[in-house]
Amino acid sequence: MNANQFVPPEGAFTRTVPIRFSHCDPAGIVYFPHYFDMFNGLIEDWYTEQLGVDYAELILNERHGFPFVHIETDFKIPSRMGEHLDLTLLLMRIGRSSLSVVIVGHLAGVERLRARLVTAMTSLETHRAVELPQALRYKFETYLKRTGQAQS
Amino acid sequence: MNANQFVPPEGAFTRTVPIRFSHCDPAGIVYFPHYFDMFNGLIEDWYTEQLGVDYAELILNERHGFPFVHIETDFKIPSRMGEHLDLTLLLMRIGRSSLSVVIVGHLAGVERLRARLVTAMTSLETHRAVELPQALRYKFETYLKRTGQAQS
Amino acid sequence: MNANQFVPPEGAFTRTVPIRFSHCDPAGIVYFPHYFDMFNGLIEDWYTEQLGVDYAELILNERHGFPFVHIETDFKIPSRMGEHLDLTLLLMRIGRSSLSVVIVGHLAGVERLRARLVTAMTSLETHRAVELPQALRYKFETYLKRTGQAQS
Amino acid sequence: MNANQFVPPEGAFTRTVPIRFSHCDPAGIVYFPHYFDMFNGLIEDWYTEQLGVDYAELILNERHGFPFVHIETDFKIPSRMGEHLDLTLLLMRIGRSSLSVVIVGHLAGVERLRARLVTAMTSLETHRAVELPQALRYKFETYLKRTGQAQS
Repeated sequence: MNANQFVPPEGAFTRTVPIRFSHCDPAGIVYFPHYFDMFNGLIEDWYTEQLGVDYAELILNERHGFPFVHIETDFKIPSRMGEHLDLTLLLMRIGRSSLSVVIVGHLAGVERLRARLVTAMTSLETHRAVELPQALRYKFETYLKRTGQAQS
Repeated sequence: MNANQFVPPEGAFTRTVPIRFSHCDPAGIVYFPHYFDMFNGLIEDWYTEQLGVDYAELILNERHGFPFVHIETDFKIPSRMGEHLDLTLLLMRIGRSSLSVVIVGHLAGVERLRARLVTAMTSLETHRAVELPQALRYKFETYLKRTGQAQS
Repeated sequence: MNANQFVPPEGAFTRTVPIRFSHCDPAGIVYFPHYFDMFNGLIEDWYTEQLGVDYAELILNERHGFPFVHIETDFKIPSRMGEHLDLTLLLMRIGRSSLSVVIVGHLAGVERLRARLVTAMTSLETHRAVELPQALRYKFETYLKRTGQAQS
Repeated sequence: MNANQFVPPEGAFTRTVPIRFSHCDPAGIVYFPHYFDMFNGLIEDWYTEQLGVDYAELILNERHGFPFVHIETDFKIPSRMGEHLDLTLLLMRIGRSSLSVVIVGHLAGVERLRARLVTAMTSLETHRAVELPQALRYKFETYLKRTGQAQS
């Protein structure tokens, strides 16, 4: 078995991102900051489509923010225009106000990149961390139980 | 002394980035992928202005790439529109074909973020790692000696 | 009938873009350069999904470019995070080496923005305009016939 | 005299933008949405550095927005990594709540692109156009008198 082989756990949230002309640099591969933008979009879709939480509502009306406090990424294989990269979201740890997310980028069963992102829930009024609401924590725990704890 | 205090070592390469409207999100702070774009710009300027190496030449004519293989970032204090963030580039390790760079974002002597980025020199023809040319390695070593080894 | 009412012609290529956190600025609305990125993505998808032309192939292997030579856009109603904007692609004029595309952004039957983009087919070797290949021109003409000529 | 020759009027606000790796696409030239981001940055700097108006203050504290309502751009000559593009801001028309700005991109006396951007001052509370404050209008008029009326 290849060390870079990756099969998403059953029930894991996966979205496919078409690698576009606009993602790529003069070297013909994805310019890396775009990956972080893709990660943010994946998390947004995961809230909305998987957890049934309206992310826009959470930010605009409930005035919560989800800034990243720590990010680690291993870039293993570059991606090129015209490819379709699968991004799978897994959880690693649910803290008092923080959530550790692992995102694996893969294509045809081979892992291309792996990121660990720690996000903290804050109030947009005070810009301080706030405790995760119980309903949201429960959704995170349910997802974690189903998909298993991710390795960073 | 504040744990977040930061004074760049003498001779370190620092550039100031104005935090623009376009960098900020609906929460009013920098949308984090923009930081990675700023890091890339800083490294580009460091090559050109500090080391006297024409970065565009290196990529377009000598056909070398500098993809990132590993990135770690701690986001400590968010930045807002109208602020001027100082970015200082330090070195951590010079490998056979890789370079570990530490970038510290700071403002008024307080550290706001710290990133460690490992980049590998590759051939754009083969997309494989190539050994750092001796002249370039010497420039890296001289800079490292002058500014000291960075902590990640 | 509202002056801003818009119903796409039958057979027109339409894609829905979720307005993300990352698209929006501190004023809470889409930061306008992102619209141009969305337009480019729409054209890419139109080539691939509607015309059956592999856009990546066209650029990377056949070494053609499609730079924009002229752009005009009217921004009528801003869009906000959480909304889903429909983008419809229409044609206005097929030139010797150029194509005039009209993109209408609309939501719930109301036009929010309208862009006219003139793109020229070039050779990436000479960076000069080249005549549209006959097969491509035929696809453009077929689409134009089906959807009707757009108004800028 | 070359039709594309451009000499900025005396007293006009010009900033030089280094064309970076990150601005360029797989065709090796600037990906066009980046130009619009550069335009926005130029206008921001013009407010702050030329007019002595704190743009961040205007938006964050006085709660004004400056959305674009119309944009027209002619892209004449592409720009490449490593080049330094000069952007000059001129005025065309000062309306009741709108401002028509012309931005010329040039290098070594040759015009590379020309954009006309109409921006409207709005209230971020009501999202409706508001009349330009007298002090700001006076600054615009002074600049227009000094640099002359731009041609679109």
